[in-house]
Amino acid sequence: MKHLGLTRSRHLPDHALITPDTFVRTRLAEWGDAGIVLHVTPVIGSGARFVQFTAELPAGSRAGEPLNGYQRFVFVLEGRVTVSVGGETRELGEYDYVYLPAGTPHTLSSAEAARVSVFEKPFQPAGEVLPAVCWGNERQQAATPFEGDDGVIARKLLPDEPQFDFMVSTMSFAPGASLPYTEVHYMEHGLLMLEGEGLYKLGEQYYPVQTGDVIWMGAHCPQWYAALGKQWSKYLLYKDMNRHPLTSLG
Amino acid sequence: MKHLGLTRSRHLPDHALITPDTFVRTRLAEWGDAGIVLHVTPVIGSGARFVQFTAELPAGSRAGEPLNGYQRFVFVLEGRVTVSVGGETRELGEYDYVYLPAGTPHTLSSAEAARVSVFEKPFQPAGEVLPAVCWGNERQQAATPFEGDDGVIARKLLPDEPQFDFMVSTMSFAPGASLPYTEVHYMEHGLLMLEGEGLYKLGEQYYPVQTGDVIWMGAHCPQWYAALGKQWSKYLLYKDMNRHPLTSLG
Amino acid sequence: MKHLGLTRSRHLPDHALITPDTFVRTRLAEWGDAGIVLHVTPVIGSGARFVQFTAELPAGSRAGEPLNGYQRFVFVLEGRVTVSVGGETRELGEYDYVYLPAGTPHTLSSAEAARVSVFEKPFQPAGEVLPAVCWGNERQQAATPFEGDDGVIARKLLPDEPQFDFMVSTMSFAPGASLPYTEVHYMEHGLLMLEGEGLYKLGEQYYPVQTGDVIWMGAHCPQWYAALGKQWSKYLLYKDMNRHPLTSLG
Amino acid sequence: MKHLGLTRSRHLPDHALITPDTFVRTRLAEWGDAGIVLHVTPVIGSGARFVQFTAELPAGSRAGEPLNGYQRFVFVLEGRVTVSVGGETRELGEYDYVYLPAGTPHTLSSAEAARVSVFEKPFQPAGEVLPAVCWGNERQQAATPFEGDDGVIARKLLPDEPQFDFMVSTMSFAPGASLPYTEVHYMEHGLLMLEGEGLYKLGEQYYPVQTGDVIWMGAHCPQWYAALGKQWSKYLLYKDMNRHPLTSLG
Amino acid sequence: MKHLGLTRSRHLPDHALITPDTFVRTRLAEWGDAGIVLHVTPVIGSGARFVQFTAELPAGSRAGEPLNGYQRFVFVLEGRVTVSVGGETRELGEYDYVYLPAGTPHTLSSAEAARVSVFEKPFQPAGEVLPAVCWGNERQQAATPFEGDDGVIARKLLPDEPQFDFMVSTMSFAPGASLPYTEVHYMEHGLLMLEGEGLYKLGEQYYPVQTGDVIWMGAHCPQWYAALGKQWSKYLLYKDMNRHPLTSLG
Amino acid sequence: MKHLGLTRSRHLPDHALITPDTFVRTRLAEWGDAGIVLHVTPVIGSGARFVQFTAELPAGSRAGEPLNGYQRFVFVLEGRVTVSVGGETRELGEYDYVYLPAGTPHTLSSAEAARVSVFEKPFQPAGEVLPAVCWGNERQQAATPFEGDDGVIARKLLPDEPQFDFMVSTMSFAPGASLPYTEVHYMEHGLLMLEGEGLYKLGEQYYPVQTGDVIWMGAHCPQWYAALGKQWSKYLLYKDMNRHPLTSLG
Amino acid sequence: MKHLGLTRSRHLPDHALITPDTFVRTRLAEWGDAGIVLHVTPVIGSGARFVQFTAELPAGSRAGEPLNGYQRFVFVLEGRVTVSVGGETRELGEYDYVYLPAGTPHTLSSAEAARVSVFEKPFQPAGEVLPAVCWGNERQQAATPFEGDDGVIARKLLPDEPQFDFMVSTMSFAPGASLPYTEVHYMEHGLLMLEGEGLYKLGEQYYPVQTGDVIWMGAHCPQWYAALGKQWSKYLLYKDMNRHPLTSLG
Amino acid sequence: MKHLGLTRSRHLPDHALITPDTFVRTRLAEWGDAGIVLHVTPVIGSGARFVQFTAELPAGSRAGEPLNGYQRFVFVLEGRVTVSVGGETRELGEYDYVYLPAGTPHTLSSAEAARVSVFEKPFQPAGEVLPAVCWGNERQQAATPFEGDDGVIARKLLPDEPQFDFMVSTMSFAPGASLPYTEVHYMEHGLLMLEGEGLYKLGEQYYPVQTGDVIWMGAHCPQWYAALGKQWSKYLLYKDMNRHPLTSLG
Repeated sequence: MKHLGLTRSRHLPDHALITPDTFVRTRLAEWGDAGIVLHVTPVIGSGARFVQFTAELPAGSRAGEPLNGYQRFVFVLEGRVTVSVGGETRELGEYDYVYLPAGTPHTLSSAEAARVSVFEKPFQPAGEVLPAVCWGNERQQAATPFEGDDGVIARKLLPDEPQFDFMVSTMSFAPGASLPYTEVHYMEHGLLMLEGEGLYKLGEQYYPVQTGDVIWMGAHCPQWYAALGKQWSKYLLYKDMNRHPLTSLG
Repeated sequence: MKHLGLTRSRHLPDHALITPDTFVRTRLAEWGDAGIVLHVTPVIGSGARFVQFTAELPAGSRAGEPLNGYQRFVFVLEGRVTVSVGGETRELGEYDYVYLPAGTPHTLSSAEAARVSVFEKPFQPAGEVLPAVCWGNERQQAATPFEGDDGVIARKLLPDEPQFDFMVSTMSFAPGASLPYTEVHYMEHGLLMLEGEGLYKLGEQYYPVQTGDVIWMGAHCPQWYAALGKQWSKYLLYKDMNRHPLTSLG
Repeated sequence: MKHLGLTRSRHLPDHALITPDTFVRTRLAEWGDAGIVLHVTPVIGSGARFVQFTAELPAGSRAGEPLNGYQRFVFVLEGRVTVSVGGETRELGEYDYVYLPAGTPHTLSSAEAARVSVFEKPFQPAGEVLPAVCWGNERQQAATPFEGDDGVIARKLLPDEPQFDFMVSTMSFAPGASLPYTEVHYMEHGLLMLEGEGLYKLGEQYYPVQTGDVIWMGAHCPQWYAALGKQWSKYLLYKDMNRHPLTSLG
Repeated sequence: MKHLGLTRSRHLPDHALITPDTFVRTRLAEWGDAGIVLHVTPVIGSGARFVQFTAELPAGSRAGEPLNGYQRFVFVLEGRVTVSVGGETRELGEYDYVYLPAGTPHTLSSAEAARVSVFEKPFQPAGEVLPAVCWGNERQQAATPFEGDDGVIARKLLPDEPQFDFMVSTMSFAPGASLPYTEVHYMEHGLLMLEGEGLYKLGEQYYPVQTGDVIWMGAHCPQWYAALGKQWSKYLLYKDMNRHPLTSLG
Repeated sequence: MKHLGLTRSRHLPDHALITPDTFVRTRLAEWGDAGIVLHVTPVIGSGARFVQFTAELPAGSRAGEPLNGYQRFVFVLEGRVTVSVGGETRELGEYDYVYLPAGTPHTLSSAEAARVSVFEKPFQPAGEVLPAVCWGNERQQAATPFEGDDGVIARKLLPDEPQFDFMVSTMSFAPGASLPYTEVHYMEHGLLMLEGEGLYKLGEQYYPVQTGDVIWMGAHCPQWYAALGKQWSKYLLYKDMNRHPLTSLG
Repeated sequence: MKHLGLTRSRHLPDHALITPDTFVRTRLAEWGDAGIVLHVTPVIGSGARFVQFTAELPAGSRAGEPLNGYQRFVFVLEGRVTVSVGGETRELGEYDYVYLPAGTPHTLSSAEAARVSVFEKPFQPAGEVLPAVCWGNERQQAATPFEGDDGVIARKLLPDEPQFDFMVSTMSFAPGASLPYTEVHYMEHGLLMLEGEGLYKLGEQYYPVQTGDVIWMGAHCPQWYAALGKQWSKYLLYKDMNRHPLTSLG
Repeated sequence: MKHLGLTRSRHLPDHALITPDTFVRTRLAEWGDAGIVLHVTPVIGSGARFVQFTAELPAGSRAGEPLNGYQRFVFVLEGRVTVSVGGETRELGEYDYVYLPAGTPHTLSSAEAARVSVFEKPFQPAGEVLPAVCWGNERQQAATPFEGDDGVIARKLLPDEPQFDFMVSTMSFAPGASLPYTEVHYMEHGLLMLEGEGLYKLGEQYYPVQTGDVIWMGAHCPQWYAALGKQWSKYLLYKDMNRHPLTSLG
Repeated sequence: MKHLGLTRSRHLPDHALITPDTFVRTRLAEWGDAGIVLHVTPVIGSGARFVQFTAELPAGSRAGEPLNGYQRFVFVLEGRVTVSVGGETRELGEYDYVYLPAGTPHTLSSAEAARVSVFEKPFQPAGEVLPAVCWGNERQQAATPFEGDDGVIARKLLPDEPQFDFMVSTMSFAPGASLPYTEVHYMEHGLLMLEGEGLYKLGEQYYPVQTGDVIWMGAHCPQWYAALGKQWSKYLLYKDMNRHPLTSLG
């Protein structure tokens, strides 16, 4: 009954749930003819410090680097894309990803239709070491039981090193498993449900969620997830880190 | 019973409904003796990035360009106004409009009383091509069925080109017709009900609306409209576009 | 996502919306092997004074009169049922109906699967004239513009005479049409959406509704409906009448 | 905008506001062809113990006593009605009223169109003295400053004697005057705004009210009124009294 | 600011707080010229099964037994009253009390002004032993630490025997002491704050309370109290008991 | 922090959650010195039609049949009890149960401390066949996948026959499993969490629940459960059935 | 009961009510030993663009100009203060006031205890004319019926000229008088109740207010006032004006 | 039941409660291998102007000064830390603290595991005097009855001098004692419960709190505390001061 206005999407000061029935496609100059669904931007709720979007690349599409020199993380959801950066060219398939440091010229092209999840963030330097380009596949990253629970598996997609000012990881949950407690923290999240379904609790609200849903969790928003159904659920998770919070003052 | 404080006007963090019974007139230096009803400003809700106002020009009134060099879009609601820009002078009647790029000297004058709807926005350049002055009449613009529904008609009043950082359009709905789904998007809206009546759903709230009402929809606010009554309804709609959302970060 | 608990059904002190995804079948002694979905009963909300249910009759099913001698109104939704009462036997098809006075022995049988909507109520006598059995088809009843609006059509299915203590009617709405104002009244309603879709406002809540939905409106509950979509919508409506309200005191 | 469902009417467990735009006319056997608007009945909210209605009598209309032998109080709002009881016949005009004890045969007739406010209640005897028929005009009753405030005037329309189990009075307020404090009490009220306008606070809700509005205040509902505007406001007020509250237990 | 409608009084389905600023005096036949403030009656919230009131006896006042033969418990708040029952006459002062079984003829008289708290309840017999008249003084009853906490003291004012269908007790709290947990139970309460102040939590609401406040707690209402200030607080507490709850079914 | 008033217990018009931290023990005449925790009674919320309680029997305790001749269902939670009825004596251990028809003399005794869950209901006859005494053990009853899902197992503890006016069953859920949809129905429930934990959705509220919690679901209350954690969860469930709902009308 | 936390003060995103019981005194360097109650600051709600405070000057106190060169408006509430600016020295008594342009050196001294209301704002220049020092007394300013209602009187305390970027005025209301409609506008307000009492409606909330209360109304907050009681009420009102709202964009 | 998402933590626009069950540890470059729990940061709610965190130092840990030159206040909760600054080295134990001015090089090291509470803030100079390093122990600071109540004791940990732009103090409360009234003020707070328990009221919400809880109170948030239990409670309190609030305007 979406044509009668029904939706699970919600927009609050410290979080948002955005479901696929409410996605609106637009264009961005550096993405050519790709359809861009801007999920999280700095003007969401009481404010975010990154951008999360889905790019739907038609066959034969070609994109360039961010016009403003932001860092970019690209995760392939469907199809294959070819990424060229620093003289190297790789073809990425499902759950492959690449991290592109701020100011790095690169191109993405898709011979056939593809869908990628993208995070962008202005880089906050700290020290002299700068992050380098990273390539990987989610399924090949180390799987760590979260706080010792083998029903909750964390995989880090980026090196856990201080030159990075954000992390992207995945969290996987067995049916009935949940975060061990409600978390409240300074870091904000962009989240994409990759697989499965469950209930997300944000502040005092419970939200049934499923594959394809996007969630924004602002700084200090209380958050908890429990997986339901018969299969494991998995989500892709952006988190800022390694920078002093007072640097966001002014 | 408006003298007992009853009104449909509402002011929330991500949207506002502002009905004519609550309009308050003020003055702006560049508009001379016109009555100015400032509907949407940067300090509304959790913040907007444009200004929407109605200018009520008495007979013999004369206005100049924005003092701060903003872009301006003028749409005639009632009466006739004479606009002079770049050596060209045109008389605009009902549903005529003009787009005036940032920093363009111009004058508006009204031999008799007139009422115009105005949108202003600081220009965000992108590339070297700059927008030019545009003239038009809403009723003469191409009418496109929205997502294939001939009960929902969209008309774009500005060229759909990347040098523009906002669009103004109209949306028309047959009785009983509605947006095909709730939209959630990065772009924000200023809206003026030109004709007819219906129900607007903003976030979780339903608002009965009618001709003359103004709505502000902040970024990412879930939004849906259904037309009621016996005649088509139509609204004028401002939307920002074609710029990367991270440019609004500080 | 109904398996994650999502539903439009709501239960409040003075009204309820009950959507088909939440229907639960049970049995009633006088209905044999028919599946019975009890929509409205005396223990709903702060209390009702009638019963509304759907009976799903399998092929070869047979039912008798109410064990407690209540009045019964049967409206055929799907298939055909054979009704025998007072020596008369009729076959009823879609939108046919029969009213059976209190204490009238009768049988309903279905050669093939059928679905009927049933209302039952203890009879409150008033005067010496008693209601008689009534037969009819909804589409053949007089169509009256409601308060003069030819976009809102009322059809009464029972005689408008004082010996009856309830009425059943249908209301049909053109797309975009609505009740001319919110109604507040002593009479309570059981409603079944027969065709189309729209928005029901009950108290301060707006509910998107569609074919198959059931609504209970308790006494004095403010109520308003607007039809959406491209086709007329129609609902079946029970209402008590013709009795002094103080008779419900103790 | 009542056709879009807007109304000030509200229905809660311990009070209701019912405004004229939501009135629905019905018939009652003993009132012949008069239009009856049943404002308060035993099934309102969590329950009332009386009935309040407006009877709109067309020219030539004639009504009899309550079929169930209830007490009746009739107050003339507009036009003239002729009342015959116990061999006496009087013509009542605006603000005239008559109290008719339980089981008293009588007739009301109207040569021309008239509108009357009626309260009915089953009689609870207490002692051997029974109430007698009372006639009067509201404007001729003693005006008493309420708790010493000459901006708040009370007029009792019935004798303040223990054989009566209810009182009807009027309360009048100068602009800006209010009840001296929120009242909470066992007695319930039916109220009709006769003149003027103001704000009624019921529980935690504030309601702007005006002439013609009806309010039901259930037992123990916190209640407060303040008069606004440039003229005095006045309301007609039913209240039960003189009976022990445990008599309402079962 | 009580004249502007401010009050702490609240009326909900399962509890009520009634503060002295909202008390309204009325009369009851058996209490002569005493002012009666009916705090709790069967029509409060979703229903009570007893009556709690304060009787303000002027000098020279005289009252008789309940007209309907209910049980009565009288607790002296201020002044002195003379009670005669079964040939015995006693003078009661502050915190003295008397329990009068159902159907017991008696009189209360006050030579000077006095104020008493009264509870009345229809008697539910259980077995053949009937309760007898009880006299006592609250300060002389056994003081028992509540669940072992010597900061919370309970005193029972009636014998804890099965022929009684209600208990009256007092609870005293040291500053900072509280009930050891939120209680939820079948029994309902009438409460009068005798001394001190604190916070009462009823359902999800917190209420600051002080000496003189009355609280009704309906069956199954979650309830918790914490004492504040520099002195002990004490409240008088009615509770039904010793009867099977199904006896309240019709 | 229960001593600061924190609890998960809630009491609403159509449902209640009652957690062990809020249990209050009382006595019932027929249960001798057993501690009785009355969870659900006719005065809960807007009303129930049965009683659910836990009886905590000390060693050497002895109880008789309900004084009012109600039906009784006893389910052993802990320890062992000896039941004698109709000349037969059985010892019941964990998850054993017995159904005792209305008016059946019987005794329960416990040599050592035991804890039993009890449901009682006035019997509504229908037809001439009366229910007989039933004995059983929950773990030995037939396990049926609920609506075909082998992660949700139903066990009926009583015969599914029309002479019974209520059913008691258990529902078991694998981690992550849930009811297949929100149910809305005429029947009311008393529920005791026997094992495991999860989330119960009642109306619009989500409640985390665990072993030992009691839930009352009134008629027509929307309800849904999902199991969490690493083990199956199981609850004991009372439901009325097989009677026409109009029989509850006065 | 303020010691139990009761207060009428409220703090919301677009308005605040601050009552004297919640005032907290602090110091500001330029005010010496005066007690400063900072009512409105840039960090209130979702943000203000001015400061409103009360300065309580002890006898012999002395203050200097704002350290940051802001404009200042001083209104004497109680006592007398001596103001020296530009070589001129005046003594101000009750309802006298002075406006001091940005960057104007001045002193305020009080021979005896005095209380003044102060507004400060960074100056936004517009054109070449700058505001000059203004002196006046509120009671001597022109009294204008507001929108033609002689029960609502406006007095402007500053010249209505474009070089000023804010206005201070008073509004006076006869008992029962109110603003003619709810206002929604771009300008924000700081308000001090000088005399009388009434109800302020801000957004959807009603607030009883009285002399001494402070209100902040953020931009676009719907607002309405009605005066109650027996005397006129009057409030002091700050409002920004004469500047284009886009100038507040970053 | 924290694993089912239960928590007392809340995040609102003008305050937050953060309980230890929801703490998440992260790292900060200048703190080496210490676990950092960032409680309050500039992006909390509608914004803070300082940072509050707990640093959990493992044995042998070593930290340096803030990388951005902020002021720092360190309070030892558990264990011992060695602080070296300006050539001076001190060992701090429980309730010892040190204030380190902006830009002061220093080190903290812990021979064994320790836990410290830290506040950091950019320094706002005012005048030429700069704050110096301060050392102290909370228990040795002057204890002042708050507003004359010896059940509420305030201790200032920093000199009350104008060169400081923030204060840290402790507040201690006897059981049952409370703040004398709800405070509303411009200054914001970071609070850590050091001892005991009670109820915090923030805006309209009541929160049970206990040792270890953290609270953020934004500017102008209404706030009130009452102590419960049998022992005194004490909290550590950060407050900004001595600077004009307009300096926070952009």
